[in-house]
Amino acid sequence: MRAEIIAVGSELLSQARLETNSVFITQKLKESGLKVMRKFVVEDREEEIREALESAMRGSEVVILTGGLGPTHDDITREVVSKALGRELALDTKILEGLKSRYQRVGLKMTDNNLRQARVPEGAESMENPNGTAPGIFLREGKTLLFLLPGPPREMKPMMGQVMDLIGRYKQLTRLYYRQLKVASETESGVDSAIGSIYTSYSSIETTILSSPGMIELMFYWMGEANQQLAEDQLGELVTRVREKLGDSIFTDREEDLEQVVGRMLREKGKTVATAESCTGGLLGKMLTDVPGSSEYYRGGVVCYSNDLKADLVGVNETTLERFGAVSEQVAAQMAVGIRESAGADVGLSVTGIAGPGGGTAEKPIGLVFVGLSSDQVRVKKMSLGGPREAIRIRASRFALDWLRRSLL
Amino acid sequence: MRAEIIAVGSELLSQARLETNSVFITQKLKESGLKVMRKFVVEDREEEIREALESAMRGSEVVILTGGLGPTHDDITREVVSKALGRELALDTKILEGLKSRYQRVGLKMTDNNLRQARVPEGAESMENPNGTAPGIFLREGKTLLFLLPGPPREMKPMMGQVMDLIGRYKQLTRLYYRQLKVASETESGVDSAIGSIYTSYSSIETTILSSPGMIELMFYWMGEANQQLAEDQLGELVTRVREKLGDSIFTDREEDLEQVVGRMLREKGKTVATAESCTGGLLGKMLTDVPGSSEYYRGGVVCYSNDLKADLVGVNETTLERFGAVSEQVAAQMAVGIRESAGADVGLSVTGIAGPGGGTAEKPIGLVFVGLSSDQVRVKKMSLGGPREAIRIRASRFALDWLRRSLL
Repeated sequence: MRAEIIAVGSELLSQARLETNSVFITQKLKESGLKVMRKFVVEDREEEIREALESAMRGSEVVILTGGLGPTHDDITREVVSKALGRELALDTKILEGLKSRYQRVGLKMTDNNLRQARVPEGAESMENPNGTAPGIFLREGKTLLFLLPGPPREMKPMMGQVMDLIGRYKQLTRLYYRQLKVASETESGVDSAIGSIYTSYSSIETTILSSPGMIELMFYWMGEANQQLAEDQLGELVTRVREKLGDSIFTDREEDLEQVVGRMLREKGKTVATAESCTGGLLGKMLTDVPGSSEYYRGGVVCYSNDLKADLVGVNETTLERFGAVSEQVAAQMAVGIRESAGADVGLSVTGIAGPGGGTAEKPIGLVFVGLSSDQVRVKKMSLGGPREAIRIRASRFALDWLRRSLL
Repeated sequence: MRAEIIAVGSELLSQARLETNSVFITQKLKESGLKVMRKFVVEDREEEIREALESAMRGSEVVILTGGLGPTHDDITREVVSKALGRELALDTKILEGLKSRYQRVGLKMTDNNLRQARVPEGAESMENPNGTAPGIFLREGKTLLFLLPGPPREMKPMMGQVMDLIGRYKQLTRLYYRQLKVASETESGVDSAIGSIYTSYSSIETTILSSPGMIELMFYWMGEANQQLAEDQLGELVTRVREKLGDSIFTDREEDLEQVVGRMLREKGKTVATAESCTGGLLGKMLTDVPGSSEYYRGGVVCYSNDLKADLVGVNETTLERFGAVSEQVAAQMAVGIRESAGADVGLSVTGIAGPGGGTAEKPIGLVFVGLSSDQVRVKKMSLGGPREAIRIRASRFALDWLRRSLL
């Protein structure tokens, strides 16, 4: 079944805002077998909205408009849609009461502009918006189901459940079967050459490989006939074969980040970690503490950005620093051992490297990074990472997190 | 002058990729007086591309298509456009030679698919793509200028200069006059109520207020007649009046971040800084070291996420910790003093607070943050920050950076 999205709002055409609602809506629709074939982003102008609406309704059974439902003068979606469909706007007393009590609660006076938000096209059904004043509007026109939703993501997103229920009332929904795997410490081309011959052999499964610095996400979508048993068998078989190839590089089959997985494992094993960072400058600690409750297993760390702090804060030997340089296997090892001891942690994790754009030499080029891990013993891994400064720092931090994860397996 | 953008690519309709080309193109066009009234994102399917093209050409003098110029079978933009305009595709020998030498250079064999990239519609002009194999294509059709550009941003972006030159050959371009200001440590509503009466009094200037955690960006665009003197006078007057209201809260009038401004000031004054972080977990250090060359003024710091590390690593008094708690004015002060001393820095900067979602109490609610700054003397500021965990941590770090900036003025 085919769907289209029309995002209304002049600000979405400027550099001020990136339009992200449609990404969320597309995924929700996809999970119920609806395919978004086109989306429009248009100015808050009658001509643009009307033309997009007419074009979308010609081809699609579900059309979702977002934005332009607010109380100000440039919010005209409601009026333009009514006019385009030849329906009068009528006051919805239920919405009006809701608006009145909302304004009373916050001690503000309702203006005539707010009244506009209580008007809906004839025959429409209003949809509750728990996070704002603009209700959603649902309309049937011929074979098309039409939804008008508010623009702010925090208002729109919670309303997609109601949208799917309403679509389900009039159309036959199918369920999307899919599996996901997340992979760390591998390159996109490495993963693709390892599993390319596997996933291409399943003609009913669509594979998406999404790469970000230090992490690769694999999505496998069932595109074959609506047969749950067949879909799950095939997806299960594919995932098993992929797991055989990628092994421990796969850190999860759920919607969670590497730092969450590492946190859960540390908590389960009752272990603590501390960090000593140079080139990542605090990013590794930041990632670990992105997880609520991380104080249970993360004790803290040092950012020894200057050489003397490597000596003063984590006790790196000054002779070692002079002899091998700050970016070396020896210094990474001493940083990991030093922070483990001074923080009283079970595991010490260290990163030292050259993130660029300056500071590279022929012997120690940009992207050279050493990661140290100290527990019963101390080990160091050497990496050559590509990309700009920001990507190198993210890759180095993710690599350190992933090594910590593997050490806990 | 009116322009439209058509982004072609099924992947742009999935959750895998956010379409960002159009944001860049919109800004470039705007700087020459072209307004993007609508954009489409469409599947790589003939019907969708053709309908979007016809609709865009009806209303706009400039139409830019991105994507679908690659060598694979689902790249059909070139063919669909030719067909829609009723023009034959012809081999462009200049492109062919370029492709041949490119493939020779990297030691690959050209396939028949690559040959397709050397075909352009009759009457078209090819445009050089220094970063890829797909050349751009420029066409005139009636009053409309039509551009076909490659989809990957790193190929498309460098070609926008050629696009603007070609538009300038046939259309009268105007220059966009604008000014920007960036503000820290203020809320969006605070800024708006301070300057709302000022910017609304300039009917020829369009104001955009873009807010992100701990930072507000003001953009003022001249929308009046094409008179440079008048535009610059009015924009200058507006900016002067806004500066009078917002004073030192404005940290730059250029395209730069707070950490870059702070870094420049530290370097100019020959001063160094060190950090002691609790709730931000390394984010403050990460921000400072996002700037290349920050080792010149950032010595490093500690992430004392647990209470005993606050004592062990930066010498916070244990009695103080017990009596006032880790999130207190007293502990923030001792953290700032302690890290300044142990890192041998000119300034010590500390953050301690409750980022949530757990850990809040009636007395010390989520969002309570203390920032300490130690130089000749030590001072502490108390804040109540709103939003989810991530936003509180960004706000706290930006606030600390901004306080450091103000202390250097």
